[in-house]
Amino acid sequence: MNNGRIYNFSAGPAILPDAVLETAAAEMMNFKGTGMSVMEMSHRGKTYDAIFEDTLAKLRRVMAVPDTHAILLLQGGATLQFAMTAMNLLPIKGKADYAVTGSFSKKAYEEAVKLDMGACRVACTSPGLSPDFSVQTSIPSQGGLDLDPGASYFHYCMNNTIYGSAWPYIPETGDVPLVCDMSSCILSAPLDVSKFGLIYAGAQKNMGPAGLTVVIVRKDLVGYAPKNTAAMLDYAVMVKNNSMLNTPPTYGVYLLGLVLDWIESLGGLAAMETRNAEKAALLYGFLDGSKRFACKADKGSRSIMNVVFSAGDEAQDNAFLKLAESKKLSTLKAHRETGGIRASIYNAMPVEGVQALVDCLREFEAGL
Amino acid sequence: MNNGRIYNFSAGPAILPDAVLETAAAEMMNFKGTGMSVMEMSHRGKTYDAIFEDTLAKLRRVMAVPDTHAILLLQGGATLQFAMTAMNLLPIKGKADYAVTGSFSKKAYEEAVKLDMGACRVACTSPGLSPDFSVQTSIPSQGGLDLDPGASYFHYCMNNTIYGSAWPYIPETGDVPLVCDMSSCILSAPLDVSKFGLIYAGAQKNMGPAGLTVVIVRKDLVGYAPKNTAAMLDYAVMVKNNSMLNTPPTYGVYLLGLVLDWIESLGGLAAMETRNAEKAALLYGFLDGSKRFACKADKGSRSIMNVVFSAGDEAQDNAFLKLAESKKLSTLKAHRETGGIRASIYNAMPVEGVQALVDCLREFEAGL
Repeated sequence: MNNGRIYNFSAGPAILPDAVLETAAAEMMNFKGTGMSVMEMSHRGKTYDAIFEDTLAKLRRVMAVPDTHAILLLQGGATLQFAMTAMNLLPIKGKADYAVTGSFSKKAYEEAVKLDMGACRVACTSPGLSPDFSVQTSIPSQGGLDLDPGASYFHYCMNNTIYGSAWPYIPETGDVPLVCDMSSCILSAPLDVSKFGLIYAGAQKNMGPAGLTVVIVRKDLVGYAPKNTAAMLDYAVMVKNNSMLNTPPTYGVYLLGLVLDWIESLGGLAAMETRNAEKAALLYGFLDGSKRFACKADKGSRSIMNVVFSAGDEAQDNAFLKLAESKKLSTLKAHRETGGIRASIYNAMPVEGVQALVDCLREFEAGL
Repeated sequence: MNNGRIYNFSAGPAILPDAVLETAAAEMMNFKGTGMSVMEMSHRGKTYDAIFEDTLAKLRRVMAVPDTHAILLLQGGATLQFAMTAMNLLPIKGKADYAVTGSFSKKAYEEAVKLDMGACRVACTSPGLSPDFSVQTSIPSQGGLDLDPGASYFHYCMNNTIYGSAWPYIPETGDVPLVCDMSSCILSAPLDVSKFGLIYAGAQKNMGPAGLTVVIVRKDLVGYAPKNTAAMLDYAVMVKNNSMLNTPPTYGVYLLGLVLDWIESLGGLAAMETRNAEKAALLYGFLDGSKRFACKADKGSRSIMNVVFSAGDEAQDNAFLKLAESKKLSTLKAHRETGGIRASIYNAMPVEGVQALVDCLREFEAGL
């Protein structure tokens, strides 16, 4: 690697493309001759307005978001969306279904229950799940979903960052809108946005820095929040104000625009899918052939973004992490909930980074 | 001016110190040899944890925040605090007093009323205020406050960005905690934090980029939010989790740390006060002696951060703005609510910028 940069396998905030950071650094003191940093610009001024509108247009183009859906650029991360989705959509029919297949989908369910805005029900869990939801290594099949056709929505998390599992299909829920947390897989592959009622994602994995949250919502689902909802938490208010009820996270939006430029320069989401499939095949291919390492997630429910595995026990895992760190392969320690090793290989991770990781795994396995 | 930078008088997001932006640019690709940008770092990792804790410690030191108060680094701007202050503190006694002396304090009051968490009352307005609150050029005296000794809190906005007025004193409210929006004046001068129950401020004026919100709250006022409050909106949850319930706006926190370094390098808040007083005296001194320009805010209620004035009528104002723009004095157009000219002269605006503005005003007045 050149320029002193490491391969950063953090689950989020996560690696960003070199090209994005280079542009951000070059434009920091003076954006395109304006004499200002983007972060110094009035959000109501012409220059910033163009950045904002351009970013929205790029996201709509890259994700092929249909006109039926509005794009919002908000704050608060997925955790605030756990509450906002319930506050805004539960009142539609007073009840909702939740798939609990990982740590964050469980948190989304628990938050919705706490808000007490309607009846929330667990529609499915990982097959063979322990009563405390503590092991979540697989995704239920379509036939395993216990669906309520009268639900306001069906909520699920498409990619489970902690256990490294992911939904291999888009659930079929009839007229019940899909509400989906895509924080750790958005922009990783082409997606039929029209199938979703609402998509949300924190930016800090595949889109930019922490502190920016993207929401894509079908316009007919907006407007059901109770009258006493805080303005910042009401999708209808944010749609009406084009996400500018108050000052948006202006610099994060600019960085999202740079990330989208980078994606388009490589060929859009189809190219991301190819690139991500290549990286995942490289890593899972090695792990499946290994006698020492084993994946946490079941085959058929595996994430192409977060690969969670173990060398056998904690001592072995730590020995590997130490070797990896010495080779500038960084932030590979898994979440405390699973233990072991986790390689997050988001869009910005180059194939070379995954190859370096596989080389290191091979070296470790050979006992060198 | 060197390096192509302009003098940016934006009300917010606003000018940042050159030194802060230079450091941010230099560290963008590789923070202190870590091989990562700060915005790529896991918020749970050692390197970022040190940045976060160091920023909190610096803010506590610079503002002399006593141990009785917790510091929170949140998202959503002052507008979300309009709701959070009411959600968390109104339940204490079920009613609250609001001073309505400007556009944002009016919004805070209206948001609290909308939430319907308790009885909110207008405790004072600008003297001579029109029934629609449309002209807010002065601040009531202590004797003009109609205080309820049984209120949960007294809410006011210390500096009114739009009208360029500011409270020249800290209200005396007995045992009723002061809740204060300091978005446009925080860090501008030394402050006795112990007099406040809760202080909040969006970062994008005197502290850093938009998307970061600082809350300083007396610990005994935390814990009154109803059980069905969203986790992200409950101060008790955020205090317990040290603002890390989920991923904080990591890069904004880092930039706040750099801004605090810059303030400390100049001598802290006492030095800021001297510097800001000098700038305000220079600009108000010229305006008071001018036959052409007139300030909007009444003497005795003037902001040292936002100086709002007019050349007489819209045509004259626009002629001046055109002249100023030609001299790289930028973003001087006032808010549409007042019209005219507004020079926001936050901490980061150098004395030279204000001198250049005064020179331009003098040139315009002389009819050159």
